[in-house]
Amino acid sequence: MSDRIRHPGLRDRRMSAAQAAALIRPGMTVAMSGFTGAGYPKAVPQALAAQIEQAHDAGEAFRIKVLTGASTAPELDGVLARAQGIELRLPYQSDPALRDRINAGELDYIDLHLSHVAQYTWFGFYGAVDVAVIEVTAITEDGRLVPSSSVGNNKTWLDQADKVILEVNRWQPEALEGMHDVYYGTALPPNRKPIPLLHPDDRIGEAYLRCDPDKIIAIVDTDAPDRNSPFTPPDADSKQIAAHLLDFYAHEVRRGRLTPQLLPLQSGVGNIANAVLTGLAQAGYRDLTAFTEVIQDGMLELLKSGVVRMASATSFSLSPAGIDEFLAHLDHYRQRIVLRTQEISNHPELVRRLGCIAMNGMIEADLYGNINSTHVAGTRIMNGIGGSGDFARNAYLSVFMSPSTAKGGRISSIVPMASHVDHTEHDVMVVVTEQGLADLRGLAPKQRAQRVIDACAHPQYRPMLQDYFDRASRESYGKHTPHLLTEALSWHQRFIETGDMRLS
Amino acid sequence: MSDRIRHPGLRDRRMSAAQAAALIRPGMTVAMSGFTGAGYPKAVPQALAAQIEQAHDAGEAFRIKVLTGASTAPELDGVLARAQGIELRLPYQSDPALRDRINAGELDYIDLHLSHVAQYTWFGFYGAVDVAVIEVTAITEDGRLVPSSSVGNNKTWLDQADKVILEVNRWQPEALEGMHDVYYGTALPPNRKPIPLLHPDDRIGEAYLRCDPDKIIAIVDTDAPDRNSPFTPPDADSKQIAAHLLDFYAHEVRRGRLTPQLLPLQSGVGNIANAVLTGLAQAGYRDLTAFTEVIQDGMLELLKSGVVRMASATSFSLSPAGIDEFLAHLDHYRQRIVLRTQEISNHPELVRRLGCIAMNGMIEADLYGNINSTHVAGTRIMNGIGGSGDFARNAYLSVFMSPSTAKGGRISSIVPMASHVDHTEHDVMVVVTEQGLADLRGLAPKQRAQRVIDACAHPQYRPMLQDYFDRASRESYGKHTPHLLTEALSWHQRFIETGDMRLS
Repeated sequence: MSDRIRHPGLRDRRMSAAQAAALIRPGMTVAMSGFTGAGYPKAVPQALAAQIEQAHDAGEAFRIKVLTGASTAPELDGVLARAQGIELRLPYQSDPALRDRINAGELDYIDLHLSHVAQYTWFGFYGAVDVAVIEVTAITEDGRLVPSSSVGNNKTWLDQADKVILEVNRWQPEALEGMHDVYYGTALPPNRKPIPLLHPDDRIGEAYLRCDPDKIIAIVDTDAPDRNSPFTPPDADSKQIAAHLLDFYAHEVRRGRLTPQLLPLQSGVGNIANAVLTGLAQAGYRDLTAFTEVIQDGMLELLKSGVVRMASATSFSLSPAGIDEFLAHLDHYRQRIVLRTQEISNHPELVRRLGCIAMNGMIEADLYGNINSTHVAGTRIMNGIGGSGDFARNAYLSVFMSPSTAKGGRISSIVPMASHVDHTEHDVMVVVTEQGLADLRGLAPKQRAQRVIDACAHPQYRPMLQDYFDRASRESYGKHTPHLLTEALSWHQRFIETGDMRLS
Repeated sequence: MSDRIRHPGLRDRRMSAAQAAALIRPGMTVAMSGFTGAGYPKAVPQALAAQIEQAHDAGEAFRIKVLTGASTAPELDGVLARAQGIELRLPYQSDPALRDRINAGELDYIDLHLSHVAQYTWFGFYGAVDVAVIEVTAITEDGRLVPSSSVGNNKTWLDQADKVILEVNRWQPEALEGMHDVYYGTALPPNRKPIPLLHPDDRIGEAYLRCDPDKIIAIVDTDAPDRNSPFTPPDADSKQIAAHLLDFYAHEVRRGRLTPQLLPLQSGVGNIANAVLTGLAQAGYRDLTAFTEVIQDGMLELLKSGVVRMASATSFSLSPAGIDEFLAHLDHYRQRIVLRTQEISNHPELVRRLGCIAMNGMIEADLYGNINSTHVAGTRIMNGIGGSGDFARNAYLSVFMSPSTAKGGRISSIVPMASHVDHTEHDVMVVVTEQGLADLRGLAPKQRAQRVIDACAHPQYRPMLQDYFDRASRESYGKHTPHLLTEALSWHQRFIETGDMRLS
């Protein structure tokens, strides 16, 4: 056990998860590790949830503010949400129980760009951080921390928290040591300097997290896997979306706007992203790079085959089979993966400098290329904006993708007006569905609308969209961005009332 | 005359504006200088408009694509719009005749972030640039160009255009020479490097624009003033908005989140911005800096009194009295003003590094802090997003400001749902009207809504907003961001139908 805690003075801070959780009191702001279901604390949040339930049973109020890197898992967001233990949560979440409570209006959730979380904490916008609960792989002899399967905001949480609780997770491979790159050159304005990263593979920091040992109030041993959702092979729609995108990249290479090495790839998480990665391999690309948030199974495959030369990210998000593959070929992957803090993995300065190709999912796009990434029918939050804004705004190419319909055709992901806007018309270059790809670069609003209708809309909805656009073009108050305000959100309202955006 | 054209070999390219304009043919993409009514070509566009009208009278089609830095003047956008000579215009415009034609659906207008224009042109997203028409102050012996009263995108236009027409405007003070800083270190991905600017006053480039002399096909002498709109003293609402903002800054200084030197200021153009500058002087600030787009009269005053130590911008926008003041104290101002290309003045990398305080006007804010900067009733474009997105997204503080009503109270600038979104909830920290200031940092959507209603709404509209929000909080499909989709845009629709957002 103790081999993971090499610092002799820290071994006596070991205690049970329940003892550690008892150090967290009602009203505290608790910053936790975790990004896309990796590297989150596994034991203390569950023990805390039990204590919160006990307090509630005893008629005592007990809620905390929870800050993380991004999404975690049922053992963190799930248990705390079910215990009614969260009063405020930020930034990104994807837990069903937590989401239900947010949408019931029972707790406050702040959705913000993942690159902004650390600096807003440093700026003091969220008040003091009382406790950080951070999973690590090991503690070195001199007290430095070997990060776990995600870095996220851990540097900031360790710096900013008054007290620190560490979970040392033996399940995490010791070989993670050396894979991380934690940049300690950040500063507050007016003392900021350029981030000295010129290529996705540049190492600009240290392989360890620093932490004042005096702040460490508890160390909890764990041996528990990350969320590790099983990998779902790409479905037909995802493959079709990927095929359209691959055609587009080939076209851009032929036009000389991209080289055959493309530019550093960023892609969101999930089925479509995996399909795109698979498609890149099949299309014969070699020596690509990734400057992204998350390493999924699909990326491992590409790193193995040489399609991708190296990948920079802030987190893993592997299936159990992906973990096995990673462990079986550790030496190969260690040389080709760098995990950074999320303020660096998503830094606008770097995304623009490197010229990333940003590929992100969406809930809906409207005729003019405004993108809703977060809200169903404008009001129900799904997961949050994540890093999509960090990348899309500053990318060389910003791509948003989704199947053209959802819920068996009852929802169109192409709508007259987005019911919530996370990415404005100014930040969206390409929209792709399984129907086709709309390249919106250099197009004015009405041109964009026709392109989106023709290329992306599902045939069931295309005539409805064309009808709306035609009538809006004739009758709109202003004809720069034609809309009929009495109808613009009527598709969403119809879905709320009938469960179907289609006219019955 | 010829003293402004010091390069001997170029003098014989001098010709009349009509002769130069005749080199521009139908369908061409013409990139022109000009930013906020400064430094735009004064003669060639007028001559071109006359030739376009002649062609139209003769039954010939003649339209061009017009790219600029930002807004120009009646002598450029106005005459070309009235001649029906523009088929596509980008990025920012403010000419009434042009705006009318855009909103009548007669020409295409692309609205984009001002920091993106140069790179999108380099990326090839707008196709080839056939001709650049650039106003300069002088041409040196060795053919370098002394920029005029704005820099804008001129470096890119001169680099990218096949052919160049120069207007050498004797009206521009020769003493402008040396005030500019044109950075030639930009590159395309994957070859980009950090922009080596650490402070607003750093000079990182050259005082001159480069241009291959072989590309110069015409030089036209002019002697004509910039647009130079008269300065309007701040009105009562603007003063009140400024007062709220000054209180807020004082509060932030007391809390230690800002020093008494604040951070580099960016402020939009106009009455409110001038009131804020005046307020800073009255509040006793000293040694501030500005990293902004435009130098207005108010900024000159502050530079004179030492309230502002130096200002970085891409353009002047002075009144006739402001010009006189500038010329009367040239040596003072030359040491304290740097004019840069707009890709640098607005660069996201620099705005984030410097930690700008971004203050921009808006058309409307909604309950949740989404900002509409561009479209009246969601469909009629006003001027465009300008640099507001470049600054707001990356600022230390992003402030949006407007009187709480317009058109004598018939329009509320606080609405249930923004009819067009240019700045999302993720990018907006502070909303100010003459009623008060809403600090939205660290607030979740429903908290933001109540703050905006209480602090910013006009008393005439406050009960209507509260009623909407209360009912939405009860009845909304999702209760994260409560809305009633059948009513969300009804205020705008009522304005379209009755000319008044209020219930009659």
